[in-house]
This record gives sequence, structure tokens and C-alpha cells, in this order.
Amino acid sequence: MEKVRLKSVPLKSVHIHDGFWDKYIRLVKDVILPYQWDTLNDRVEDAEPSHCIQNFRIAAGEESGTFQGAVFQDTDVAKWLEAVAFTLASSGRDEKLERLADETIALIGRAQCEDGYLNTYYTIQEPDRRWTNLKEGHELYTAGHMIEAAVAYYEATGKKEFLNIVSRFADVICEKFGKEEKQCHGYPGHPEIELALVKLYRITGNRKYLDTAKFFVDARGQGTNYFELEEKGERYKPIFPEFAGYQPEYSQSHLPVRQQKTAEGHAVRAVYLYSAMADLAYEYQDEELEKACETLWNNMVQKRMYITGGIGSSGLLERFTTDYDLPNDRNYSESCASIGLAMFGKRMGDMTRDAAYADIVEKALYNTVLAGIAMDGKSFFYVNPLEVWPDNCMERTSLEHVKPVRQKWFGVACCPPNIARTLASLGQYIYSQNQESLYLNLYVSNETEVVLKGKTYRIKVNSSFLTDGSVNILAEGEKGSEIQEGAGGNLALRIPGYVREFKIYRNKKQTENPVLQKGYLILENLGDREEITIEFQIKSHFVWANPQVRADEGKVALMRGPLVYCLEETDNGSNLSSLYVDTEAEPEEQYEPELLGGVVSVKLRGKRITMKGWEDGSLYNEAKPVLEDTVLKAVPYCNWGNRRTGEMTVWIKELINH
Amino acid sequence: MEKVRLKSVPLKSVHIHDGFWDKYIRLVKDVILPYQWDTLNDRVEDAEPSHCIQNFRIAAGEESGTFQGAVFQDTDVAKWLEAVAFTLASSGRDEKLERLADETIALIGRAQCEDGYLNTYYTIQEPDRRWTNLKEGHELYTAGHMIEAAVAYYEATGKKEFLNIVSRFADVICEKFGKEEKQCHGYPGHPEIELALVKLYRITGNRKYLDTAKFFVDARGQGTNYFELEEKGERYKPIFPEFAGYQPEYSQSHLPVRQQKTAEGHAVRAVYLYSAMADLAYEYQDEELEKACETLWNNMVQKRMYITGGIGSSGLLERFTTDYDLPNDRNYSESCASIGLAMFGKRMGDMTRDAAYADIVEKALYNTVLAGIAMDGKSFFYVNPLEVWPDNCMERTSLEHVKPVRQKWFGVACCPPNIARTLASLGQYIYSQNQESLYLNLYVSNETEVVLKGKTYRIKVNSSFLTDGSVNILAEGEKGSEIQEGAGGNLALRIPGYVREFKIYRNKKQTENPVLQKGYLILENLGDREEITIEFQIKSHFVWANPQVRADEGKVALMRGPLVYCLEETDNGSNLSSLYVDTEAEPEEQYEPELLGGVVSVKLRGKRITMKGWEDGSLYNEAKPVLEDTVLKAVPYCNWGNRRTGEMTVWIKELINH
Repeated sequence: MEKVRLKSVPLKSVHIHDGFWDKYIRLVKDVILPYQWDTLNDRVEDAEPSHCIQNFRIAAGEESGTFQGAVFQDTDVAKWLEAVAFTLASSGRDEKLERLADETIALIGRAQCEDGYLNTYYTIQEPDRRWTNLKEGHELYTAGHMIEAAVAYYEATGKKEFLNIVSRFADVICEKFGKEEKQCHGYPGHPEIELALVKLYRITGNRKYLDTAKFFVDARGQGTNYFELEEKGERYKPIFPEFAGYQPEYSQSHLPVRQQKTAEGHAVRAVYLYSAMADLAYEYQDEELEKACETLWNNMVQKRMYITGGIGSSGLLERFTTDYDLPNDRNYSESCASIGLAMFGKRMGDMTRDAAYADIVEKALYNTVLAGIAMDGKSFFYVNPLEVWPDNCMERTSLEHVKPVRQKWFGVACCPPNIARTLASLGQYIYSQNQESLYLNLYVSNETEVVLKGKTYRIKVNSSFLTDGSVNILAEGEKGSEIQEGAGGNLALRIPGYVREFKIYRNKKQTENPVLQKGYLILENLGDREEITIEFQIKSHFVWANPQVRADEGKVALMRGPLVYCLEETDNGSNLSSLYVDTEAEPEEQYEPELLGGVVSVKLRGKRITMKGWEDGSLYNEAKPVLEDTVLKAVPYCNWGNRRTGEMTVWIKELINH
Repeated sequence: MEKVRLKSVPLKSVHIHDGFWDKYIRLVKDVILPYQWDTLNDRVEDAEPSHCIQNFRIAAGEESGTFQGAVFQDTDVAKWLEAVAFTLASSGRDEKLERLADETIALIGRAQCEDGYLNTYYTIQEPDRRWTNLKEGHELYTAGHMIEAAVAYYEATGKKEFLNIVSRFADVICEKFGKEEKQCHGYPGHPEIELALVKLYRITGNRKYLDTAKFFVDARGQGTNYFELEEKGERYKPIFPEFAGYQPEYSQSHLPVRQQKTAEGHAVRAVYLYSAMADLAYEYQDEELEKACETLWNNMVQKRMYITGGIGSSGLLERFTTDYDLPNDRNYSESCASIGLAMFGKRMGDMTRDAAYADIVEKALYNTVLAGIAMDGKSFFYVNPLEVWPDNCMERTSLEHVKPVRQKWFGVACCPPNIARTLASLGQYIYSQNQESLYLNLYVSNETEVVLKGKTYRIKVNSSFLTDGSVNILAEGEKGSEIQEGAGGNLALRIPGYVREFKIYRNKKQTENPVLQKGYLILENLGDREEITIEFQIKSHFVWANPQVRADEGKVALMRGPLVYCLEETDNGSNLSSLYVDTEAEPEEQYEPELLGGVVSVKLRGKRITMKGWEDGSLYNEAKPVLEDTVLKAVPYCNWGNRRTGEMTVWIKELINH
């Protein structure tokens, strides 16, 4: 029997008005998009010029000069356009913004080569080297972001110009790459084109896009590694010196994807690839590929993921390492990797209807992705450590990749626009649906309209989930159309894995002995007007790591609902490593409206190692530690680093009863 | 009043026969020197060819070809010759070995340019670029090692040929570099020439060598950084791509040395420089420079040194970082850096007669330096971590510099020959002396002969210091020469800082209320025959780190005498991070003759975090740790990694009473 996947409710139909999320989403339109527009146009005084728009003008023959920036510089404008599209869809059309976008799209069109090829680096700088260095050249990666942006822009505005541009380029790609003898058998050094081609297929219905995506995924890691072969090409030219000593694992090309059992290599590359694999597993009803996705997912989330939803334990090469290797202070955990994890999880959840995937999507979004952006929207983390001691994050040392404060912008500016497009498209993570059922995955206040079993329902979610765990849902059937007995749609409520107790009231009547289906409680046959109230017990609780995670042994973390908490120097003084928490004592919660935009802080009983016995300034001594009582104060990890610069830690030493 | 420094007893006069050290020293002659000779001659099948001797043949015009290896490849043969020299001095002349050395020296002589210049890289490869890249070219560094080797060879054999060769080269250097306008005002990117020139001055009496050493030290860090200036030179050519983004701190040229307050940059460069500073402080009776040495020493040993005597916290650039930043698993702690620390400490101790310096010299030699070599002499550590989990020491990750097993040889082979020359010259660390007193610094069994107050004394030390803390010393005055009342020499016994209790018997009579002078107990007026017995209390004890060392908080180390202990997986099972030690329980010592060549192992009471509650394979969970009683077994750190490959840790979690 053919499986039918769930789909997101169209972004246009989801109207978010949420106390927690609104402040971030608003930043996209108010702060990030304008700032990024200025960056793209080299108008920000104290930032490195991006050259991005300039490159397009040069490629279009409207300006003279040389290409400047990274080989994938074009993606900056692609991600900006995608974020604009999502913003237009979710926050409503905006003439001024749309005009900027239209003009930019027109410029992109003029920069496109006559044969449909589109990439300013190769067009300006290396016209004779197209497709000769897939390992480093990022042509297919850049194409993928252009396609994603065009699809989003079409969905938001109905305008086809951008879609036509990228379709012409996609046609070039589909002709160039494939199984045929005359075609190139290579695949991208950085996956992204695959999931983009699936999106293009879904919007155009043109099956060759899907087939080429499948070609890329299946060709990867087959036979002699393509990246080794292409190095022997006549016109091959290396780009990044740091790619010397390249290992196929880095780009997940060490094995055919169906044989890969562990998440390896560059974390962003990995999750972008896995997302496409999940797409294709569904589109081709390919159980083997679905199984491969499941295996990789499980390896990642059960052995290689931080409690914050961060992935990528090694700073060098931003990559996965080995099972249970989760160091807290030198990890990479790129913001983009957690975005990719959410993308992958969303696809797996839609295919399997298993709420466990949404647990991880929520973890990544609410913790690492949000930590990646300052609360004023003006600075960003690439790297998301779980423990920071600012003094030792020194340039030209092993910790140089870890920044104790968010950075304004980056030379390689992937994370800020990626966070922007994710925030602007949050709506797509809230719901999934099919013709009968609406799945509510994230408890974000919003209103939407869906058709279930042929009936239109207006859904209003009023959530104070993060504050007190309660969610109110009002579902109203289309006015005037009586719902026939037993013919109403279904509402599937995700019961998060971390919730120990909950109560659900349907029209004020408590649902007795609710049975969950893969983590969802399904309310069937919705009537004309249903009031549903959920009371989740989300009080803060301690969480331990599997003892095989050596970095976390003897330590404990604090969570409250989906939010991971941390200690900051601002609240707890310096030297957070000197603190112990007493997990026998009940955490004390307090909503602080003035703190970090309004958060629940948590006080914990504990001890602190004092400096008693070390007055002589010695480095090693026979002075047994002297502890004193103290109270620890924890705040949500997603908000760290928004006050003074200082130490931070997620994992806290635990007082052991012995 | 002029200070008079102490000097080592000549290596030739110190005959070591020590249960602990003999097995290592023997390796130099039996294993390392022959193996290294084969390496230098490219005769080791499974090792990268060194090309070292070949380069000299090419430079001498006796073979054709191009230079191969690193720019400082010549130092391999220099360090080999120095180790040969020390071996001939300490273990007695050896015709075969000496012939090899003489032939090699003759070859070096033939490779020397007519004008006295000596460096095969520049002679073969870049004859027009001499002295144009002091930052990276290592010419002065290489010259320094040649000079040190020649001085040692002369001292061991009385043969002057090598000394003449290097003196001619030193003359070239003294003419090229200096304060005069016509001279080059540069200084080496890697210090080493400075201390070598001091040695050359001391053996030749030629003061210009000393003055040039002083010039190099004083010029460093003055005005505009020389390494930035030389980059603008016409013939400047970069050598190492990884030197892009060079910071003057890396080579301690960020400030004039007298203004430097903290140990910065590449650790080996630092301690080689500081050693020369100490030499010059003495030779010029330069109190300001001595004070600078003291400040740098104190910063290092009180804030930036591992309990094992390792230095250099950052893997990237093998460098110092910041105060109290002493991560245990990603540090560099190069074997050569600890050798340099011992060199610096020896010089400071000789100048100040303060035993505190010898405490650190001993710590470095007995722990990090010895850990650097396998007990079979066939493999070596460059990097000396204090905590290893082999699984996560992966290539192409942040931990790629950490090796869980010693390596056979290295492309840049600085550590193995450096360890070899240090072992072969251990004798120089045992004693220091002046005309009146003999200072006994290391309790190593040996025999020597010294002249004190004009009388010759034969000293026999029989030490079982590491086993039970006892040392017997027999001092016999020259036969036939009655020592006049009150006119005998003095013996100064170092009382190690870690010894809490000790008893000293002079001719069976206990010395009452001994008073220490800067850590030495001085026995005056030695008679014709004195039997001295020392009973040090060296039972194993716990040591804590200053709570500002975040990496060690909540943990404890075990020491016994100078030896730092560690836990190995072989004795304690995997996952050493799951272990807690109960510091209230008395450690249990046991001498195990079969273990690691005969060591005292120590058993500790403790607990282990079990896998109870984690049967479901989850990564994060609300399962409070379940501990079980266990016994931990610790062995000396210097012997780690000599059995099966496995985890190791020096710092152990402590059960806290609360």
C-alpha cells in the first residue's frame, strides 16, 4: 500500500501570534532583512563588503570588475530572497520589500548565461571551469539555494519569473548530470541541490527534477570516489587550501548512502543530504532508503547529538566524530547544522507520523537555532558551545572557533540568513496534515485554516506552553456546513516525549486513559465547534546523559519543557566549574517578566568550591576542597549571552550521595 | 658582590647505576642511536626517509640531487651527534660509535661552505636567500643544535674538529648579526642559537659568542617586529603556509624580553629562549634579566603548567594560552617543551641555589619526558595528554594531534632525539656544585668524584627513593689526605617540596631540627668517610589543583614522590570518566616487580557510575546515576600506554562529602 506523507499547512495560512516566538520572527522583517540587504549591497560601514549584488551586476555585464567573495557568495542573495519570500507568506505582502526582491530577481535573470547557467563566480572568474571541481566549487549547492528561494517566492507571490530562471538552470543541471554515458556522473561536494530539486519537482510537476535528485543521492559514494577522479581532470583547479588531505567521509561520499550507518563528516552537509534522502524515500516509496534515513537519524540523535540539538563535535572541519564524543567546550554545533537537523526531522515525521521526530525538531529549534541569534537580531553564533570560559577562547589556539559573544556578520555568512529563513518559515514546523487529520507539532499560538475530510476548519491555538504548560485550541467547522455524524476531521496532538503527565479536555470533558499513536493523541471526528484544553506538566527537571558520554559524567542538566537551561556568570559569579548542584532539592521556578524578554528562571540548591587553602597562589597542593552553600540560578540556553560577556555552562556538576 | 653560579659535575664523572633510570638510559645506546642512525641514512624500511645524511652529501658535492626534508632537517644529525657525545661521556668511549660520529663530522665539514656557512637546505636549495627568512628558515636554530652537539662532542672526546667547524660558522653569525649598522638586526624565529653560543663561549672563552647571544636576546621584540620587516625584503620567500596570520607572541617577539610577564606563544621556543636568558643573566650579572626570568618562570609553573610538568595548552600552534587554562585531553604538552622546562629550571637553580627549581626539573623529567618514550625505546609521544579516550583521537578532527599510542618516528623528528640526548645527559641534572659544596638534586643511584675545598671526594649514592624513599650516601675523602678540622666540603641535600617528613642520619646519628636553606639541607665539613642515610616519607597522597583550573575542579590526582599517577583502562576497565575516588580512604601501595618493569601500584577505594537505567540506549534521560563500589588501580604516568591501547586519566573525579 502506498504510504501517504503528511505535508505542512501552507505558510500563508498559518498566522503566528505567540509570546515566545513573535519577538524573534519580528526581527526578521524589522532588523535582519534590511541589515542583510545593506550587506549584500556593501552598505554596512563596519562590516566586510559582501560584493554579492555587485557580482551579479558584473556577471550581467552592467558593471566592470572581478568577482569577489567566496565561491558560494551567490547563496547570500538566495537565502535573503528565500527569507523575504517566507516573510511575505507568513507576515503578509509588503510592497516595498517585494519591489526590492523583484528587482533583485530581475538582476539575477540578467546575470544568467544564455544557455541557462547561473553562477557569478564561474561566469565572471572561471568560465572554462564549470563543473570541474564539484568537491569545492559549490556550484550545485548554490544552484540549490537559488531553487529553494525561487520556489518559496512563487509560493508567496504567485510570480513565476524567478521560478522560470531557476528552472532553466535546473534543466542545464539535469542535462549535465545523470547515469547516461554522455553525462557527468559526479555529485555535489556540498549537498543541497537534491532537496531543492525535489521542491522544484513538487511545484512544477516535472519529474526529471526528481529523477536528477535521485541520481545525485544514489551516485554518491559509488565506486571510485568522484572527487578523486575529478582531481585528474585537465581543467581541475583546487580552491580551498584547507581541503588538502580530503577524506570522502567529509562529504558523506565514503559509501553509497544506503550503506551508511553512522552520521559522518561535515554536519551541515550530512543533514542536508539526509533531508533529500527522506524526500526521495517518500517520493519513490523506497523502503530501503527510508531505512537508511532511520539508521542515520538514530545514530545521530541517540549517540552524536547534544542535549541542545547541536550536532558536529569537532571544531576542525565542523564535523561528526565518534559515538558519545560530545565535548561541551570545543564543539562546533553549527547553527546551520541544527537547522538541517530540523529539516531532516520534519521530513521523517511527515513520512512516518512518529512524534519522536518532532521532539528533536523542537529541541533543535528552541535551543540551538534560537541561541544562534541575539535577542536584538543583530549578531549571531556560528558555533554553539555548551560551556564557555571567555578567557580561553583565544585566537590562534585550539578554541579559536568558539566565540563567547555573537558576531555581527561573517565572511562566510551562512548562519545568519539561514536562521532568518528558518524563523520566517516557522509556520511550516507547527502543523502537518493529510486529507483527514491535522497534526499539531509545536505548541505555538497561531490561527490557521485547513480542509479535513472536505470540510474547512478554522483552528485557533492559544498557547502558554512555555510558561505554564497549558494550551487552548478552538476548532470550528466551516460555518453553515453541518458536519455529519462521524465524518469530521481529526486533530492529532503531539505529546512531547519529555512530558510525564498531561490532561486533555475536549469540550471541558477530560479524555480518560488516552492512548497515544506514535506519540500523538488523536481526537477524532471534530465537530462544528470544539474546545480543547491541554495541561502539560512541564515543571523543570534534571536530565542526565548516557554514562558513555564521558564529557557529561558526574554532571546534570536542567530542562523545562523543550527548553534546556544553563548557568551564566552574570547570575552565578565566575568559575562555573566550581559549582555543584543538589539534585535532591526541588528546583524553584519564577517567571521574571523583566529578564531576557520574560522568562521562567530556575533556582537550584548547591555548593561552591571556595578558594580556601589556596591563599598562597600555588597551582597544585594538598588542600582538599572547601565547599560552601550556594544558590544557582539557571536561565534558558537559547537566551545565553544576551547580557554581559561571561562564562556559561549547560552541564553542572552533581553532588553525589555516597 | 658577584654571584657565583653552580655548575653540573662533568658528565664523564657521573656514573649512573639506578634501578629506575638505567633501563631508559640503556635504550639510548642500545636502541635509539642505532635506529636513528639508520633513519638518518634512510635505511628504515617502514619509516619516511629522513634524507638527512644525503642532504649533507649533496651539499658537499659528493652526490647529486635536491634537498629533501624540512628546512631544519640538519638538526636530526646534530641531535644524534649530541646524544652520541653524551653517551660516550656517560657510558664510556665506544670505538664503533665514535667512528660513525667522526665520519659524520667529517662529512659535515665537507658540506660547510668555504666562507664557513653551514646549512644544507640553504646551501642546496636557496643559496641566495641566506638569512632572508629568520621567522621560518630555522638557520639560527639549526646552527644552535650543531654548536651544542660540537661542544658536547669535544667534552666527551677532546676532539676539536667539530668544534672548529661550528666555531667557523659561529664566526659567520657573529659577523652577520649585531647592533652595528652594517649588521643584521634580526633574531631567530626559533630560539636555540642563544644558549648554544653561551656554551660555545664557555668552552672556547671567546667572548664574542656571548655578546652575540646577548644581542639576540636583547634585540627580540624591540621596536617594529623584525619578522614583519623582513617580509618586505626583496628576497623574502614564505616557507610554511600555516604561518599565515603570524602573531609575534608565537615567537616571544611581542615585547622586549625584559618586559614580558607571562609565558606566551610556542612553548618550546619560549623555554629555549628563557634558558638563554638565564644563562645571560648570570654571565652578565644582569639582575633585571634574572628578575625577568623569575617572573616568566613563576607565571609558567604557578599558572600554566600541568601537574606532569607539561606546558603548552593549545594543540593549535603548540602554545601557551591563558592563566589556569589547562585542559587535559586536547593539550599539546610537547615532550620537547618539558625538556626545555628542565633546561630552564636547571639554569635557574644553578644561579639561585633554590631547590624549588629542581622540584620542577624533576617533575618534568620523571613524568612528561619519560612518558614521551616507550619502555622499549622504539616509539615516542610528541604530545602528552593527561586524559585520553582513544576513540575520539581521530584524524582530521580537533583532537588529531593527540595520539593514544606512541609513534615510531616523525616527519618533524624533534622529540625522539631530544629525549635521547636528555636521557644520555641525565648526569648533568643530578648534581650542581661550586668550589665548596656539592648539591644533590636528583636521588638517582650513581658514583662520582668531585673536588670540594681542594679535596677530592668520592661520592656513592645508593637510592631506593622511588621504592621506599630511602637514600644512602657514602662520601669518602681522598685517600691519604687527612681532612683538617673544619676544612671539609659541604653536601647540600635537596629536600623535595612534596616531602612532608624526612629523617637524615649522618654516620648513624640523626640530624636534629634540620634547617633548610632554600630547600636544601646542608651537611657541612664532610670528613674522610661519611655515611649519610635519608628516609624520605614518600607515601602516595592526593593532590588538588587550584580551583581556578576549571578543567580539574571536582577532581583529584595521585602522587607518590615525584611521580604523578594515572588510571589506565587496562587496570580499570573502559570509561574512566565514570570513576570516582574516595579521598578519605587510605591509598594502598604495592610493589609489583612484574608490572611495567617493576613499579609501585596504588589501589584506591571508589565508585563507578553504572549503566543502570540506560538499558534503552537513550542519550538523555531522567535516570539519576546508580553508583557501585569499586577499587581503582593507579600506575605511574610515565609508564602509561606501555600495555594495551586504552583510556588513561591523571585527574579522577572525587566523591565530595556534603
